[in-house]
Amino acid sequence: MLSKADIKRIRSLHQRKFRDLEGMFIAEGPKLVDELLRTHLSEIWIYHTSEWHPPAIQRVDVHLVEVTDKELEQISAFDTANRVLAVSAIPTASSYVVAPVNGLHLLLDRISDPGNLGTMIRIADWFGIDTIFCSLDTVELYNPKVLQATMGSAFRVNVRYVSLPELLMKNSQEASLPVFAAALGGDNLYDHQLAQDALLILGNESRGLSPLLLPFVSASLSIPAYQAGSRKGHAESLNVAVATGVLCAEFKRRFGKPA
Amino acid sequence: MLSKADIKRIRSLHQRKFRDLEGMFIAEGPKLVDELLRTHLSEIWIYHTSEWHPPAIQRVDVHLVEVTDKELEQISAFDTANRVLAVSAIPTASSYVVAPVNGLHLLLDRISDPGNLGTMIRIADWFGIDTIFCSLDTVELYNPKVLQATMGSAFRVNVRYVSLPELLMKNSQEASLPVFAAALGGDNLYDHQLAQDALLILGNESRGLSPLLLPFVSASLSIPAYQAGSRKGHAESLNVAVATGVLCAEFKRRFGKPA
Repeated sequence: MLSKADIKRIRSLHQRKFRDLEGMFIAEGPKLVDELLRTHLSEIWIYHTSEWHPPAIQRVDVHLVEVTDKELEQISAFDTANRVLAVSAIPTASSYVVAPVNGLHLLLDRISDPGNLGTMIRIADWFGIDTIFCSLDTVELYNPKVLQATMGSAFRVNVRYVSLPELLMKNSQEASLPVFAAALGGDNLYDHQLAQDALLILGNESRGLSPLLLPFVSASLSIPAYQAGSRKGHAESLNVAVATGVLCAEFKRRFGKPA
Repeated sequence: MLSKADIKRIRSLHQRKFRDLEGMFIAEGPKLVDELLRTHLSEIWIYHTSEWHPPAIQRVDVHLVEVTDKELEQISAFDTANRVLAVSAIPTASSYVVAPVNGLHLLLDRISDPGNLGTMIRIADWFGIDTIFCSLDTVELYNPKVLQATMGSAFRVNVRYVSLPELLMKNSQEASLPVFAAALGGDNLYDHQLAQDALLILGNESRGLSPLLLPFVSASLSIPAYQAGSRKGHAESLNVAVATGVLCAEFKRRFGKPA
């Protein structure tokens, strides 16, 4: 049973303004909530209908609240609410930026589409990529569309919002991992030497890479396009998440050991 | 200047029911309209504000109608209308199914997310894939979200809706191209022999491949997953459009000549 005040408070978290203000976020649906319960996040409130059954995870800091279908509809951002909705605290991240020393890492520069960011986090989870560094103006991780598109990977992959020029500056002074950038007109991915320990930058969907980052780029990589016999030319570009998938697959094909 | 009846008639085409009934569809925004004008589709009505300038394409069967910002908002499905909206006739496709004889072709089995279908059409355009065969229950090509996600490739790639079992039966009787399917737990893509002329099946986002198609599959392929040092396991799957990108890139890396 939810009070009007409860409903209003939970619903407010669908808006970034209130997420920032309260330091809380919402995860909806069985898959996301299941992944949320596997994290070390403390203080999780779960609002569920009688159709949802909690996984066999014993935690003292999880508060279960059974609600009616109608109440769930009222607090859900989905067109059709899906059995369960959780509210939890946004973990506070250290603002201290450390340049990575090994492994493949993604740097996302001004990604604006929530579905793209979510899909890229899911890709990072699939390919065993340690950390994603997002520019400060990349779409917010706790945007409901981002979380949904990650299919739970948001709670598994280390996603940090940092100043990318600052991170790249530290990298050039410290570990000095090679910095690759996805770019139309870059070198053919398949002809180019890659590295096991590297930073890979993906730029904004329509504007590409920020000029501020260009001085740090060791090599620009492009995915070759092909022409069908039945038509002239080809698409102008690939979707940025698809390009991320193709690039990560190729880095891992050369250097990774499959799980 | 649009009449109330015009506005009602155009708006109705945002719904599939009326697209089917009228045999007309809508393409919105400069990029899609530009690609539409490069097609052989006849009878195109273009509703544009004074901010849109027609490309230098001379066609007698294009009807230009200048509208106000407010009128464009009224006929647009976008939150923010983008200068131009075109209405044109859905081309009638032959219902006769011919099995392809060469090249790489995609078979999409029950793809339900419009963004995924649109992205896969864009991928096919990038990688020079001749034809996409969609199962009859795959999301409709003229769904506005599909068209938008194709970024214009919908007007370049040959997309056909057919009975996939019928197509695969004809293939096994005629050209007999090898049939690959993307499947979790399939053979490692990178260890497997592929073919220049082939059919590649991608299944539904959550249910995978229809059992009806399994008897026709020569080999199941999977994209290897990897584990990060910082966590256990990996994502359960990749997004189907991302998987399509990785698979097409690998087929073309082995057999294609970049454009």
